[in-house]
Amino acid sequence: MSTKSKGAVVLLSGGLDSTTCLYEALQEYGYPKVKKPPILAISFNYSQKHIIELKKSKLITSRLGIPHVVQKLDPEFFLGSSLTEKKLKVRKNAGKILDSNSTEIPNTYVPGRNILFLSFAISLAEGHGYDSVYIGVNALDYSGYPDCRPEFIRAYQAMVNLGTKTGVTGDHSIQIKTPLLTMSKKEIIQRALELQVPLKDTHSCYDPVRGKPCGKCDSCLLRNKGFAELGMTDPSLG
Amino acid sequence: MSTKSKGAVVLLSGGLDSTTCLYEALQEYGYPKVKKPPILAISFNYSQKHIIELKKSKLITSRLGIPHVVQKLDPEFFLGSSLTEKKLKVRKNAGKILDSNSTEIPNTYVPGRNILFLSFAISLAEGHGYDSVYIGVNALDYSGYPDCRPEFIRAYQAMVNLGTKTGVTGDHSIQIKTPLLTMSKKEIIQRALELQVPLKDTHSCYDPVRGKPCGKCDSCLLRNKGFAELGMTDPSLG
Repeated sequence: MSTKSKGAVVLLSGGLDSTTCLYEALQEYGYPKVKKPPILAISFNYSQKHIIELKKSKLITSRLGIPHVVQKLDPEFFLGSSLTEKKLKVRKNAGKILDSNSTEIPNTYVPGRNILFLSFAISLAEGHGYDSVYIGVNALDYSGYPDCRPEFIRAYQAMVNLGTKTGVTGDHSIQIKTPLLTMSKKEIIQRALELQVPLKDTHSCYDPVRGKPCGKCDSCLLRNKGFAELGMTDPSLG
Repeated sequence: MSTKSKGAVVLLSGGLDSTTCLYEALQEYGYPKVKKPPILAISFNYSQKHIIELKKSKLITSRLGIPHVVQKLDPEFFLGSSLTEKKLKVRKNAGKILDSNSTEIPNTYVPGRNILFLSFAISLAEGHGYDSVYIGVNALDYSGYPDCRPEFIRAYQAMVNLGTKTGVTGDHSIQIKTPLLTMSKKEIIQRALELQVPLKDTHSCYDPVRGKPCGKCDSCLLRNKGFAELGMTDPSLG
């Protein structure tokens, strides 16, 4: 495998985690010394209740001058999740942080989401001749999703090594980068501050009310916990 | 795992292989006794040179009354393939059938295509509560694509078992079904005839001229070889 850095595709939802990942990738590929690093962001329109994340993502990438693909999904996708279906209520005030051995999966789980999103990113990366894909999964302060766990990422990587031209021919295999995998939310915020992530412009809430975080969904609870542990006010609430 | 059959998503390109797969799935889920088996077909619009395949796919599914999703992909996807880029010529008259140990990959390879297509199918299947995904990959009479090989499919299945709710909770894990994996083209045509696949309406050519097969690309060569070995005329040429 070549060690030359060729470029990265970053899965961006405009939240704290994925935006921090974007800034990790920027740093890895030479930013700010390199003004236009070979970074491509991708986001998805799947009629999610928190579709405001697309506006936030665009704000973040347009300010950086980073190319950004927004892929629309057919309405047949992602049924059965409270993030997409009006009749299902997003879980609120769960009041606990599930550990990575739990098999309790909340109704905010989206069927096959990270599998599909990673596959878009891998395809984009290979088509553009890039050598890595960044995803902001986190297996510590998370909500019990199977597609955020280290064992899933390892299996996904093994599959990519066998199923892509670059994986098979040995020129380079696209690497899945998960810089936040074992960090707590507090640590992620600390890292975001170091990287000068525009936290003010990030949005994590699953179920916003007129664009404002609900403060009660799992994503809000985890984000709020991180800021509270640092004794900080969340700049996005200002 | 439950053994109850719940339904299948079929990746359909309107070619010989994927249409035969569709009919395998139909039979598995009780057709023609069951008039509306729980089968959902999915095809993709990626500005492919052989976009006529979408018309053929729709003809096949509408006649059966099978629901059919056509997902459009952003133009940033699938760069670098002769199936999508005008400046690249589809390989013609290759005159050899590569074996599954070859690392020569023709320029008709599409970056991450089966990874992405399978991921769409898995996500759809899980969202619809279905238990299998059919893909018409073939590792015998094929063109050297890494994402058609048994080892890739096995790795993909292992990843699905770890990355989906249904894989992790043990209710049922979605199974990737590859009924054509080890069959020759001749055998696939024989099976298609048994299943009463409308071969006349299938289209396999990568580079059609005014909707007609070129007769020279790898896909045409393989298809023609199969019919020749059976001493048959390809009904789609009539």
